[in-house]
Amino acid sequence: MTERKKTTIVLFSGDYDKVMAAYIIANGAAAYDHEVTIFHTFWGLNALRKDEEIKAEKSFIEKMFGKMMPRGANKLGLSKMNMAGMGPKMIKDVIKKHNALPLPQLIEMAQEQDIKLVACTMTMDLLGLKQEELLDDVELAGVAAYLADAEDGNVNLFI
Amino acid sequence: MTERKKTTIVLFSGDYDKVMAAYIIANGAAAYDHEVTIFHTFWGLNALRKDEEIKAEKSFIEKMFGKMMPRGANKLGLSKMNMAGMGPKMIKDVIKKHNALPLPQLIEMAQEQDIKLVACTMTMDLLGLKQEELLDDVELAGVAAYLADAEDGNVNLFI
Amino acid sequence: MTERKKTTIVLFSGDYDKVMAAYIIANGAAAYDHEVTIFHTFWGLNALRKDEEIKAEKSFIEKMFGKMMPRGANKLGLSKMNMAGMGPKMIKDVIKKHNALPLPQLIEMAQEQDIKLVACTMTMDLLGLKQEELLDDVELAGVAAYLADAEDGNVNLFI
Repeated sequence: MTERKKTTIVLFSGDYDKVMAAYIIANGAAAYDHEVTIFHTFWGLNALRKDEEIKAEKSFIEKMFGKMMPRGANKLGLSKMNMAGMGPKMIKDVIKKHNALPLPQLIEMAQEQDIKLVACTMTMDLLGLKQEELLDDVELAGVAAYLADAEDGNVNLFI
Repeated sequence: MTERKKTTIVLFSGDYDKVMAAYIIANGAAAYDHEVTIFHTFWGLNALRKDEEIKAEKSFIEKMFGKMMPRGANKLGLSKMNMAGMGPKMIKDVIKKHNALPLPQLIEMAQEQDIKLVACTMTMDLLGLKQEELLDDVELAGVAAYLADAEDGNVNLFI
Repeated sequence: MTERKKTTIVLFSGDYDKVMAAYIIANGAAAYDHEVTIFHTFWGLNALRKDEEIKAEKSFIEKMFGKMMPRGANKLGLSKMNMAGMGPKMIKDVIKKHNALPLPQLIEMAQEQDIKLVACTMTMDLLGLKQEELLDDVELAGVAAYLADAEDGNVNLFI
């Protein structure tokens, strides 16, 4: 019996283009029968936020972070040429024109392909994000769980 | 017979300093007899653009991307302290002073060392870049080819 | 006899949040008995600078870099929402509130856990940083030493 190959991505970035790259690699790897995990930490957690406003007990500073950070994959900015939101609009236009998948659909596909989506508990605490603000079926875990996945992995990336 | 070790880099960034780091690691790995691939995607494609303006059939939005993105390795900005182009000038000055190789020469060296330079077809489409705008001897491929290289690699990086 | 697993991180970034992520992964890996190396290059070198001003022979351009770059882990900015220094203050506040470790303590812990902290000689030259400006017990090495660590590593990341 041969073991399945493993792809494990730390998704630190919350930029539309980088998150897109992460999910394209992840979905590709899952299609090639890799066991795939995306470990969302820091700004990468924003890709997992629900689109709507969720009521949650928060301190003042947590509320500020909550307001300032984009709520969900569709609201993320670009790492380059963001141009006050015009860049993301341009990218979404060309994605549509080329019949490529926009980010929210890439994330849905990842869930359908059983890619394990993990949210880093430590940075959720720091940024004041609560589980009910994140997409369903996201697992919560810490750096130990990440290392357990990564240490016998084939493709390990930090994005 | 022992197999050659493999270094596979996804070059997502189009910042002079990050591209430089990628090519220094890649050239070093090739010197140690690794089989090396650099998979250029998103802004990393700009490092492969020819210096001159190339005529190509483009839509309006593709022309805009083409105009706004830097044309080739020598035109890239810095990820930090870009200071409207003064940063890159300073870096290039110190590179010269220390007899280190500037980026265009690092890319030439990579080609001489048979490092496989790949351009991601999906993001070429999105950004409207055509093969004739890129350096010669660049291969075109998609995420499947990247994974085939990366999954039995030794050093996998996302830059 | 089983060999220890290896985690090798290229720390290119000098952003407080990214450096923090690097040191959290590194300290976690060391706790799981990995042999861990952090190879600091470009802006990542700033995390290793001493807090005080160190006298050193420098050219004009080296002095400029020295002045403009942050002096040590506590002075670094954020990769996102830096807001002229308010972002780092907010992050440090929540770190304190959650009894998490701020960056200077994470670096101390790394040294106590015998994580190998390496400074890239080539980029020290380029940015004009001298050994006496860096923390004690930092090793100086080049890309060849990095590759020797990385090529038989388990977790290789570029941050």
